[in-house]
Amino acid sequence: MSTVMTGARWRVAFQGEHGAFSEEAVRRHFGADADPEPLYSCDDVVRAVARGSVPCGLLPVENSLAGSVVATYDALLDAPGVYVTGETLLPIHHCLLAPAGARLGDLALVESHPVALAQCRRWLAAHPAVEARVAYDTAGAARDVAALGDRTRAAIAGSGAAERFGLTVLAENIEDRPDNITRFYAIAREASLPGVGTPAKTALIATTPNVPGALYHLLGPIAAAGLDLTKLESRPAGEPWRYHFILELAHVMDHELLATLLGALGAAAESLRVLGTFAAGVAPGLTEVVS
Amino acid sequence: MSTVMTGARWRVAFQGEHGAFSEEAVRRHFGADADPEPLYSCDDVVRAVARGSVPCGLLPVENSLAGSVVATYDALLDAPGVYVTGETLLPIHHCLLAPAGARLGDLALVESHPVALAQCRRWLAAHPAVEARVAYDTAGAARDVAALGDRTRAAIAGSGAAERFGLTVLAENIEDRPDNITRFYAIAREASLPGVGTPAKTALIATTPNVPGALYHLLGPIAAAGLDLTKLESRPAGEPWRYHFILELAHVMDHELLATLLGALGAAAESLRVLGTFAAGVAPGLTEVVS
Repeated sequence: MSTVMTGARWRVAFQGEHGAFSEEAVRRHFGADADPEPLYSCDDVVRAVARGSVPCGLLPVENSLAGSVVATYDALLDAPGVYVTGETLLPIHHCLLAPAGARLGDLALVESHPVALAQCRRWLAAHPAVEARVAYDTAGAARDVAALGDRTRAAIAGSGAAERFGLTVLAENIEDRPDNITRFYAIAREASLPGVGTPAKTALIATTPNVPGALYHLLGPIAAAGLDLTKLESRPAGEPWRYHFILELAHVMDHELLATLLGALGAAAESLRVLGTFAAGVAPGLTEVVS
Repeated sequence: MSTVMTGARWRVAFQGEHGAFSEEAVRRHFGADADPEPLYSCDDVVRAVARGSVPCGLLPVENSLAGSVVATYDALLDAPGVYVTGETLLPIHHCLLAPAGARLGDLALVESHPVALAQCRRWLAAHPAVEARVAYDTAGAARDVAALGDRTRAAIAGSGAAERFGLTVLAENIEDRPDNITRFYAIAREASLPGVGTPAKTALIATTPNVPGALYHLLGPIAAAGLDLTKLESRPAGEPWRYHFILELAHVMDHELLATLLGALGAAAESLRVLGTFAAGVAPGLTEVVS
């Protein structure tokens, strides 16, 4: 956690609804004093931070099974005044939530976000009497199930949604893989650097000249320094087949290393924007390496 | 076009509904004799080709504004017996479609796929009296508008949908950028090679060892050969922060070059699967280079 709390509660914008995994991530990263503020889209979260109507925000960047959250990258690409100040890793455990009194054997319908349904494929296959239906998000599905109060209908969502909407947990950890993790970026209007010598990451946006070998040459200084490239994502730059590359490197915080590296990357890139250098998040027993 | 037609009509599976841009792409790639067969998901298309219930399929891989279609990559990753046999580039021009007799000034609502709405942001901003509403897809929105017959409601979709559902085109080319293009892969159960000396592309799936510099070293042979890397996409491999890389290279068809290159890539990768080598598609005045 890299943001200083100052007595009063700290408003943190997140995408989604109360009870969502993102709200759990806000509490994990900013602590119990955080005041999570739900907004509709990733764009809304970045814009709220950019114009200063909230001091910070938290957005998902990647799920270990579903992949990158491109809406977050696109929102950051559009907001040059917003920085990544930290990351947090949230294990995703799906629960089956139903109104009080519901029994597993009576369920006819279960609803959730398509990614959550896909992550619980084995449980769904083992319960063929239960029809799976797509919903806009996990917390929203839980809210609807609670409002309806029909004991044959359940939602797949996090345990936070059970608490929020007063639902019963009929089954826990119904995801196919127990090592399902979502990674989030904390964002603010000011960059903040982690302490020298601590595990850190640096996120960058680069464009390359439109010539063969340009991406290879951009990655050269990273490989030469022996650093892990923890993320490489390309997003369209507008003109057909031109891209912004989002890079993320793991390193130990060291001002000289960072200055040298950014200099070399800047020389290889057509343009380079530093999204932020921040303390690396940890999840028990896991390491992150792309290359 | 690399598929031989044999008199009878040629069934080609695509994702979506009749009247969709994908159906237009099927006709563009396979010609007027193609018999486009709509399926629900990209997975369904790949599986239908894999089990031989259709001879070939066509799937979107990338839009020049919205980016990669990860559902296509994920479906191909899951189907080792399916090959990319060609590509086709379809310019995307959005039309405003309404029931006969509708007038622009009377419109209150316009519905379409979220990506189509985002690509027509300027037109929507210039018509604040018209509310934009999200629909599942462009052709489905057109079908619903036709079924309802309400002259205050319109859909944003391609001209193919106007024909299919008997709708009037109230406005043409309402997209923000006229150079909006979607790129499609043709797929089949057998690989086919383009003629020697012709412009070609090779699509590959690679995994790399989990060490710093691995991706850099994988790109080395491509840069050394002076070839354009036209696509680099990473998709989760299951275990957290392990990825499959999807690479696409542009080259002139040459068996020796290809064999040498694949040998070098195979040595740098942990695993390498060739999705296919196929004739490069063309769109007037455009070139495709990632690096």
